[in-house]
This record gives sequence, C-alpha cells and structure tokens, in this order.
Amino acid sequence: MSAKEDYQELEKRARELGLIGASYALLEWDHQVNMPPKSAETRAEMTSYLAGMMHEKFVDPKVGELISSVESSDLVKDPESIIAANIRELRHQYDKETKLPKELVEEFEKTTALAHGIWAEARKNNDFKTFEPALKKIVDLTKQKAEAYGYEGEPYNALLDNYEPGATTAEVADVFEKLRVELVELLAKIKDAPNQPDGSIIERPYDVKNQQIFGELVAKTMGYDFDEGRLDIATHPFTTAFGPGDTRITTRYNPNRLNDALFGTIHEAGHALYEMGLKKKENFGMPVGDSASLGIHESQSRMWENMVGRSKPFWNYFFPIAQSMFRESLGHVSFDEFYAAVNYVAPSYIRVEADEVTYNLHILLRFEMERAILNGDIKIADVPGEWNSRFEKYFGIKVDNDANGCLQDVHWSAGLMGYFPTYTLGNIYAAQFYAQANKDIPDLEQRVERGDLLTLREWLRENIHQHGQRYRANDLCKRITGEGLSHKPMMDYMNKKFAEVYGY
Amino acid sequence: MSAKEDYQELEKRARELGLIGASYALLEWDHQVNMPPKSAETRAEMTSYLAGMMHEKFVDPKVGELISSVESSDLVKDPESIIAANIRELRHQYDKETKLPKELVEEFEKTTALAHGIWAEARKNNDFKTFEPALKKIVDLTKQKAEAYGYEGEPYNALLDNYEPGATTAEVADVFEKLRVELVELLAKIKDAPNQPDGSIIERPYDVKNQQIFGELVAKTMGYDFDEGRLDIATHPFTTAFGPGDTRITTRYNPNRLNDALFGTIHEAGHALYEMGLKKKENFGMPVGDSASLGIHESQSRMWENMVGRSKPFWNYFFPIAQSMFRESLGHVSFDEFYAAVNYVAPSYIRVEADEVTYNLHILLRFEMERAILNGDIKIADVPGEWNSRFEKYFGIKVDNDANGCLQDVHWSAGLMGYFPTYTLGNIYAAQFYAQANKDIPDLEQRVERGDLLTLREWLRENIHQHGQRYRANDLCKRITGEGLSHKPMMDYMNKKFAEVYGY
Repeated sequence: MSAKEDYQELEKRARELGLIGASYALLEWDHQVNMPPKSAETRAEMTSYLAGMMHEKFVDPKVGELISSVESSDLVKDPESIIAANIRELRHQYDKETKLPKELVEEFEKTTALAHGIWAEARKNNDFKTFEPALKKIVDLTKQKAEAYGYEGEPYNALLDNYEPGATTAEVADVFEKLRVELVELLAKIKDAPNQPDGSIIERPYDVKNQQIFGELVAKTMGYDFDEGRLDIATHPFTTAFGPGDTRITTRYNPNRLNDALFGTIHEAGHALYEMGLKKKENFGMPVGDSASLGIHESQSRMWENMVGRSKPFWNYFFPIAQSMFRESLGHVSFDEFYAAVNYVAPSYIRVEADEVTYNLHILLRFEMERAILNGDIKIADVPGEWNSRFEKYFGIKVDNDANGCLQDVHWSAGLMGYFPTYTLGNIYAAQFYAQANKDIPDLEQRVERGDLLTLREWLRENIHQHGQRYRANDLCKRITGEGLSHKPMMDYMNKKFAEVYGY
Repeated sequence: MSAKEDYQELEKRARELGLIGASYALLEWDHQVNMPPKSAETRAEMTSYLAGMMHEKFVDPKVGELISSVESSDLVKDPESIIAANIRELRHQYDKETKLPKELVEEFEKTTALAHGIWAEARKNNDFKTFEPALKKIVDLTKQKAEAYGYEGEPYNALLDNYEPGATTAEVADVFEKLRVELVELLAKIKDAPNQPDGSIIERPYDVKNQQIFGELVAKTMGYDFDEGRLDIATHPFTTAFGPGDTRITTRYNPNRLNDALFGTIHEAGHALYEMGLKKKENFGMPVGDSASLGIHESQSRMWENMVGRSKPFWNYFFPIAQSMFRESLGHVSFDEFYAAVNYVAPSYIRVEADEVTYNLHILLRFEMERAILNGDIKIADVPGEWNSRFEKYFGIKVDNDANGCLQDVHWSAGLMGYFPTYTLGNIYAAQFYAQANKDIPDLEQRVERGDLLTLREWLRENIHQHGQRYRANDLCKRITGEGLSHKPMMDYMNKKFAEVYGY
C-alpha cells in the first residue's frame, strides 16, 4: 500500500476509535447524570470493556506500521501540515501506550480501584495513616510507569507529558516559582487592604430554577449551542463530548449560593466552546480533531469563568438581568458591591472552593509535593507534615486536619500524578490569550459590555479551537502571543483587578 | 478444549456481546430521550458501528464451532436444562444470522434507511403512490430474506420466527381467525349497547406534574424499582434495559388527556418488570437471560395495562387517590363513570390510539395483509384498496385517507414484516396467564383491591420472568396453563368485562 493509503487506513481506524470513545463518553456521562444506583457494577464492566477494546485496537502492531510508513513518506514533509501533526501525535500516543507492560497497567488499575474506597474512608475519618500504604503503592507503581515511559531529567517529566504533551517539569517549575512569589505578595496586600468586599451577598437564597435560566442565558450568549448540547445536573460538574454535534455540560445548584452554578456553568461552557470549535467532522478520532492539552482546555474554561465572567464589562451587561431575576437577594445591592463580592478573595483549605488568587497557590503546593514525592525527597509518611507546613507558609493559615489538607483531592488515589499543574497552566495561558485578544480586538471590553460575547468566541475559535493538536500548547501560545508560557500577563491582570477591587 | 470449556468460552463471548448490546441500547435510549438534534448523524454512525461489531463477533465461525461442540456433548442431555436451552437458542440465532448474505443485509439496510423518509413524506402528503416503489422493493428484499432463512410452508414463517421463535403462521392464523369472528361480534354488541360510557371524562385538563407522580406511584406499587431504573419522557415511549440493574421506562404526557401517560406508564412498567425479573446477573448475554419472545414481552405489558390497570379492583384502590390528585377533572365523577370511561370502546383509524377491543382487529388486518403480500396474493399497488375494504368490514367505518389507513405505521418502511402479530399474541398470552394467575391465587383480585400488586408480580416472576428463553413461548404457555395458544381466555375476559360495562 502507498503511504497515502496507509494514512487513510489510519484515519479509518482513528474514526472507529472515535466512535467507541464517544460511546464510552456517553456511558460515563450517563453514569454521572442519570444512572440508577443498582447499575454501578454493570456500568463499570461496560466502560472497562470499551476502554480495553480501545486500548487493544490502538496498540495493534499494524497501527505502528502504518504510522512508520507515513513518517518515512513525503506526506509529513511540511511539519506544520495537518498530516504531519496527526502523525507526530499518533506516534507520541502510540509509543506511550505500547511502552507500558500489560502487567503494570493491570496492577495499576487494580490498585487505584481499591485505593479509591480506602481514600474516601480515610478522608471521612480524617486518618491519613489508613491511606498511607495505598498511596505508597500507587507512588511505587507510578515511578515504574515513569521508568517504562522513559524520560530525560526527572521522572515527573514522563507523567506531566501525559496531560500536557511537550511540557517539561523544569520549565513549569520555573514559571510556577515566579508565580508563587508574586501571588504570596498579592495575597498579603489583599489581606491588609482597606476595602473588604461583603462576600455574604452571594450567600443568600437564589431560586434554583432562575439560576438555571440565568446560567443558560449566559451560556447561550457565549455561543454555546443548545442544538448540539445540553445542560444537566451532576454532583461533580464536567463537560463531555460525543463526537461532532454533541457537547454536554453539567452543573450543580446551591439554593443558597449564586457562585457554584453560575461560574461553574460559565466554566463548563468555556470547555464546551473549545470542543464545539474543534474540526471534528473532518478529523474525528484524529489528534487534530482533539484538544491540544489539558492546560489549553483549562485556559478556555478559566478565561470565560474569571477574565470574562468576573469582569466589570460582563456584569455591566448581566447585572441588571441578574437583579431582575433575583430581586430579593440582589435588589438592594449596588453594582460595585456585587462586583466586589464575586471577586472576593480569602485563603481557605479546599482547592475546589478557592477564589481566583488562592486557587493557584493550591496547585503550586500540589505540584511541589508530587515532584518531591516522585524524586524521593518527601517520604509518604511525611506527606501530611510537609503539606501543612507549606500550606501555612503560602496561605498564612494552619491546616486543622488532613481531610482539609492532603486528603482532600481524589487525584492521588486515582493515580493521576502529573495532572494538577495543568489547572494553573490553564490560568496562565488564559491570561496570555486574553491579553492578546484585547490587543487584536481593541474594543473587546466595550463589546462584552453590550453583551457581545461572540466576538471573543470567534477569536478563540480562529486562534485556538480549530487547530486541535496541530500545535502543541507552548507552540500554540508562541504563535498567538509571540512568546511561550509566561506568568506575567496573569499577574498583570490580577494586580490590576484586585488593586481596584480592594483599593490598595 | 472440553465441551465444558467451550461452553464457558461461549458464555464469555455472550457476555461481551451483552456489554456491547447494553452500550448500544444506552445510545438508543439517549437518542430518544436526551440527544440534541445536531448529533443525529454521529449517533447513527455510532450505533451502526456497534451493531456491525456485534454482528461480526456473533457470526465468527468459532462461535459456530463452540455451539457444535457443546451440542454433541452430554451437557445438553437434559433438553430442559439451562445449558440445553442456551445452546438451542444460540444455534437458532447463529443459523439465522449466518444465513443472510452480506450483500442482502446491506441492501436491506440501505433500502429501509431511505424508505423511512419516503414513507414519512408520503404519510404527510397522504400519497401512497410515492411510497409504492419503496414498499415494493422492501417486499422483494423481504422475500429474499425469507428464502435465505429457509422455511416450511409459506415465506411468512421465516419472518414471524424472527420475533416469535417457534411460532408458525398457520397456527397463529387459525387462532386469529377465531378471534376475528368473535371480536367483530363483540364490537357489534358494544355498538348497540344501552350504556355508552362518557369518554370525555378522560379528555379534561390533567396536571402534568401530577400525572407524573401518579404514574410513578402506580409503577412503584407494581414493583418497579426506581433504584434500578428511571422514568423519562419520549415521543415514542418504550422500555429498554442495559444489562443487570438498569431497566428504564419512558412515557409522554398529554395535559388534556389522562390515558396516554397513565396506561402508557403501566404498559412500559409491565415490560420493565419482565426485564427486572430475568436472571441477568447469571446469564448476561445468554438466551436464558433474555426475554422469550416479543409476544411474551407484550403479554406482560398488556396484562398490567388492561387486565390489571383497567380493572375494577385496581381502581377501587387507585381511584380515590386519582380523585384527590385531579380534583378539578375527577372530583365530581363517580367510580362507575370513571371505570366505564377508561374502558370506552370505539372503532377508530389509528392503531396506536385504539381501545382494548379494536386494537386486535387492527393487528389481524395487518397480519392478513402482510401474509397475502408475501404470498403474492395482494399486489403492492392494491394495498390501499385491500386495506380499506377489509377495514370497513371489520370496523364498520370507511377509511377516509391512506394516512389514516395503510400509511399509518412505521413498520413496513422499516422492513419489520412479521412483527405485528406479536402484539395480539401478547394480548392472548396475557389473558391466558392472567386466568391462570387467578386460579393459582384465588384472592388475587381482593389483593389488588388492597393495593397489593406485588403478589401478581411474584407470580409472574416465578412462572415467566425468571425463565427467559428457557422455554419457547408456546411451551411456556403450556407449562403454566396446561394448554398452548388459545383465544378463549381473552374472549372470556372481554365478553365478561364489556357486557358489564356496556350493560348488554
């Protein structure tokens, strides 16, 4: 067969994997949104069967041969072409998936499946000791995975690359360290600032049906197309896509708090716009039809949630609507009071409840811990102590118990080491992209003020969404902004915004 | 490998097919219940991929070898054993699935996919002529399918057997003919009877939320377990199951009519109890873990819908509750008026809106037509004329147009010839089973009157549900009632009930 035919065969196989993957994603969505409790066991069997099938079909030696054939042909001459990008990423994924010994994969799955229950119990009982052996085993197996993948420098590189292809630990650590210093400074300024917002404004009764309508209005205004998606309720909100034409978001409503569902919905709609903007029809199952990295994905959700959704122009348009929908709780609140309340900053223990500023400190802490654990610089038994002393240093408050400390997140029990940094990478990229969007569209804020969110959506689609994995995260950032990962735009954005909100 | 190992290998493969089938069923459920419109194309590709995968895995020659190995072993010595039943039905399915040439399957799929749109358009425009060529082609291909399957007697046998394994056209025609004569007589009596119910009682405003609560109450009382299922809205209501622990029902609400959702929910819950009563955990994917036939499935839904749900004892318990929930529409209605209204009989054009008596006449008409079409006794061009003249003879009213006549049902455009008779087989079996249940549980009606529907559910589970395909429909009926298919219990039930309601 010619290289062209080999490439077509790869496309065909990728499309089949895309179809199975979309079915898998629907099983998972249904699991979170609809599934009756007694079906848990069968559902686990269904998803694990489909996952196994996808793995088997992908690691088929024939796939490796097809990739090699195209690699050694003229089809990849232009390294920026779609074919070259697809082959580059398929090679990367294929090598990673084929490098892990089957026994290790199975041992890892078995261990993490058990660890989830142990972790949940330990968190409930606030007892790290009972989780310690499971965590130790997971870390051992994770190290084995890193060795099997292979890496330059430190083992963390092999893991980070699973979620943020091409990123290196050293480069991330460098940017994060600069960020940490400036965030701690910012937090100190905020703490001592003269204007302290009244955060209780958002902790009032907010009718759930109206929250849903308002969230849908905002999502629709952002360009979320309900003809190719839907909004449902889930305990742990998420976004998922089942191939072209179906990208669903979820949220959860707190009848006594506005933020959870509102900013949650904006966040998920931001993810969804990315999925809707990918060229999936033409590239279904191929890397160019898929998102560039978790960091880039998160940049889309966080930009909409924070840089747009917590901005003055946004609320200039939406606050009167919110007031009329939540008259009882917002009728007598001024614009400035409301704007300050949604930008309220306060150190707290739990990452998922954190504000825009402290959120990144939560991530930096986890990144440092993971890296040190994998390098052997922190022993598993010392995790709580190390966590707590760093937490106090960064946040200025003492952790009261491990459930509010190192036991709070599900990630480690699930074996997801290397995942956390993508959250902050998302925030950093978001600020870089948003600064550039404001340069490219000088009247962007005036447009947002008029309720025109589609101009920004178009800019994102043009510059980011449509490319999928054509460019790796850092290269994409360079293409768009002229430079690679940099913490400066985020700190500029935060310093400006919070100086104004807090009046220091 | 030993025959025992071969059987275990079959079980393993069946389980995998069960897992894919359950995923397929979820894709379909989601399609009907949740899917956003722009996803139709992708969803069709997903379902057709999974369907193709199931077909390929099942017709694998290895499956045939495994079946043969077990067939020639001692494992099937006892023909009533579970293993023997599984092998009997696997052989039957395997032979059928492997007998159709691939080209014929593909041609059939292509033709029916196109025919659906043509039929919908023809029905809308009330224009049989535009559907005629498509129907002709479908009938030609259906005949080819029958030839490929092979049959004794007439081609219809090969098709009927797809939905009602083991049933023969002659036997069904014999029972249906007796039924037709008695139904036409019954209908004439009803038409001239002194007491004519006031059917308008159910055509009043019925609050949709209350309809939902009432429907859930009835389903729960029947034993439908919402921990292993859920009730959703669908335009064309149905029941579906995704392996053990997840059996979902759907309904649709008409704010100005009580019957649609109420009897629809009872009907689907009847189907669901069958699925919930199958021993799926032990037999997932194997015939004994699956329903015996469409006729037996329908017997469960129709028994609950009509013999229980339209009975006096049932309403003795539920009418006061209904009155308190729908005070405006039912507050001043007497029990007898209400009971008569839900048992109102009136000939009408549309099968899916028909009452308990005329429904079967609709089916008998279709069965006769299909059989004659396949035998070549009716030409496609003559379908409307034949339909209309028979309709007038059976129902006493003239068909006004083909949309209300031979174009009303989707089945023929979908290539489902042989399916219709299972609806009336269901009604017949339901009456046979229900008569037996009343013999076995002499105080059954008093129990229903007290709201105890679980005694009947247990009887059904014990006698029917748990067996799956262990016995074929007619054998199951003989085991339970002592005789095979017979129209007598149904006519006894109807004659008694309607004489009372209509006072003739």
